[in-house]
Amino acid sequence: MIGGGQLARMTSAAAVALGIEFRVLAASPDESAAQVCAHTVLGDYHDAASVLSFARGCDVVTFDHEHVPADLIAAMEQAGIVVRPGGQALRFAQDKLAMRERVSALGIACPRYAPVTDLAAVEAFAAGSGWPVVLKAISGGYDGKGVWVCRTPAQAREVLDHGIGLIAEEFVAFERELAILVARSASGQGAAYPVVETVQRDGICREVIAPAPGLSSGTAVQAQWLGLRLAAELDVTGLLAVELFETSAGLLVNEVAMRPHNSGHWTMDGSVTSQFEQHLRAVLNLPLGATAPVAPVVVMENILGGTEPDLREGLVHVMALDPGVKVHYYGKAVRPGRKVGHVNVAGGDPAEVTARARRAASYLANCVEDEMLPGGASPDSADPAPAVAQEGA
Amino acid sequence: MIGGGQLARMTSAAAVALGIEFRVLAASPDESAAQVCAHTVLGDYHDAASVLSFARGCDVVTFDHEHVPADLIAAMEQAGIVVRPGGQALRFAQDKLAMRERVSALGIACPRYAPVTDLAAVEAFAAGSGWPVVLKAISGGYDGKGVWVCRTPAQAREVLDHGIGLIAEEFVAFERELAILVARSASGQGAAYPVVETVQRDGICREVIAPAPGLSSGTAVQAQWLGLRLAAELDVTGLLAVELFETSAGLLVNEVAMRPHNSGHWTMDGSVTSQFEQHLRAVLNLPLGATAPVAPVVVMENILGGTEPDLREGLVHVMALDPGVKVHYYGKAVRPGRKVGHVNVAGGDPAEVTARARRAASYLANCVEDEMLPGGASPDSADPAPAVAQEGA
Repeated sequence: MIGGGQLARMTSAAAVALGIEFRVLAASPDESAAQVCAHTVLGDYHDAASVLSFARGCDVVTFDHEHVPADLIAAMEQAGIVVRPGGQALRFAQDKLAMRERVSALGIACPRYAPVTDLAAVEAFAAGSGWPVVLKAISGGYDGKGVWVCRTPAQAREVLDHGIGLIAEEFVAFERELAILVARSASGQGAAYPVVETVQRDGICREVIAPAPGLSSGTAVQAQWLGLRLAAELDVTGLLAVELFETSAGLLVNEVAMRPHNSGHWTMDGSVTSQFEQHLRAVLNLPLGATAPVAPVVVMENILGGTEPDLREGLVHVMALDPGVKVHYYGKAVRPGRKVGHVNVAGGDPAEVTARARRAASYLANCVEDEMLPGGASPDSADPAPAVAQEGA
Repeated sequence: MIGGGQLARMTSAAAVALGIEFRVLAASPDESAAQVCAHTVLGDYHDAASVLSFARGCDVVTFDHEHVPADLIAAMEQAGIVVRPGGQALRFAQDKLAMRERVSALGIACPRYAPVTDLAAVEAFAAGSGWPVVLKAISGGYDGKGVWVCRTPAQAREVLDHGIGLIAEEFVAFERELAILVARSASGQGAAYPVVETVQRDGICREVIAPAPGLSSGTAVQAQWLGLRLAAELDVTGLLAVELFETSAGLLVNEVAMRPHNSGHWTMDGSVTSQFEQHLRAVLNLPLGATAPVAPVVVMENILGGTEPDLREGLVHVMALDPGVKVHYYGKAVRPGRKVGHVNVAGGDPAEVTARARRAASYLANCVEDEMLPGGASPDSADPAPAVAQEGA
């Protein structure tokens, strides 16, 4: 696996049971996965020599993130290395314009969008879909951000001044956000997890509820079908996570990722097969595991860096208060707002399980039980354009 | 953790989520845990310099097995190293005579026993409890074996000729074998898992059914009470596994172990808190996790080395046939009869779950579905004394 973040860390733990030798290409021995993986290779994923040398020692290469340059992925494939997902699929996880065009061509609904290179184009787009306009970096981003909610032309100009490739998208008045996670193996077997509800704040995933409460069975089946169809049409091998907007007019595709995803962390303690084992099965071309949940409701709450610099401080309190909370730490230094871990709680009652998960995550971050999580995004109206973090994991 | 076997391997995977740095002292980089643990130190657990050097770098030292010499454990404690469980407790896992004496002194029933040094003593013991007589090495064993079922004085003489310390025990006509697994933290908190039924063949654990089918609630509570009381009386920190005989006259204590135990492998996929996480919590003095099962019945089946040398061969078949089977491989080379992995299956119906687990384990070992597992031990009457393997894990 190229990339040494928390997704590689958790995949490494899942690989233990399968008896495979799992190697990680990490930038430093301090990275999340490098701390726990016995077969860590240090190297820069931008560097062709490092990547090819690492890849040549592997039966299959897969990814912790979507930032490996496309030409390096192509170089691996040309060298006969088995890369899963392959470059043709990964393109749609790396290039938002290509993804939008492909999803639209398949007849799958997504927000209205248009590539934009200047303010006139943004204003022309806004003339059709109104303000605010969402600007998204087609690939990568700027200063760690890739999504900006612009309420005025002045805010849009500021984003345009970064000089990066952008698309404009309509600001969707969604009812809530959902996500569907599917796996597709190298030989084409597919499996879908239950549809989840995701709760974002300031563009960062905070909470995932599995299954999405009150979702109609028709919409659930539609979302699963959409995920499996997209995985097949894009020829994905491995996991495909599709972030969705649920609107009064139906489901819209927001983002896609082809790797283990934050919206699937609940599976570690809530499904027969965790997403990390499932990704390994898929890329190793093993039959996929059961995606059934093990409890009526499972809630995942991210632990974001808060006021407490030592994550061990809150552990005794949280474990003593609630012996059923499952804590997952990433071995990362605490920085405000950084994802440093998550908790999973399984149970029978959504409200009770959600409250337990929120309390635990809040206490681990801050060593106090603070007010938690308004229900949805709340873009504020301050100038300049609110940048929306996109850790994408 | 001192020792690089499969128990350390699985503890290593459990440590990932807790965000602790988990180190293993292993004899070679090929050992089960060394293959996956990022912080493996190579060294001999018999060697004082190796053990003390390893231990001085750790906040807490614990064990994968009970073979570390008592004087080395004492040396660590004298050097101020935190050893959990401590030497005073571990003595009862290392010395079967001391364990029998202590358990008896507590008024807890165990098989009739006596230390024996010559044939006259064995025959005197047999005069009271009849043949067969079970001879057990007080500590360690001989040629990898530590238990011999002797049907005749000639068989007993053969065992005595090894010149190791022995106790004689009555051959218990048990109804079945049970096991109780408890945890006790450094500050004395206790937690008990559900009582399980264990099925042995040729002295090797083959199958564990959780909870033990048809067990009366009175007997279940008695077994849990017994486990928690023993853990407290022996001042165990960490896990304590107690193997029990269920007889018409009640429960008898067979063996004890103070570490993760084969009878607790089902918890990896069948309980809110796996035994490996629980052991870490206990020795790190964190509050213990919930021991509740996540399904009505969970069956663990050991994978013993069979005719198929490559454990990957059967994986595709087993995963395709039954997406709910959880496979756990230890990274060990296949040798006939060696424990090389296990499977867990959770479900609703004991007979169906057991059949699924047996089929999977059989196929992984032999790439055929063979006849599986008679219900209990079947000591044969051939000469010489059947030695009973004791991997003790």
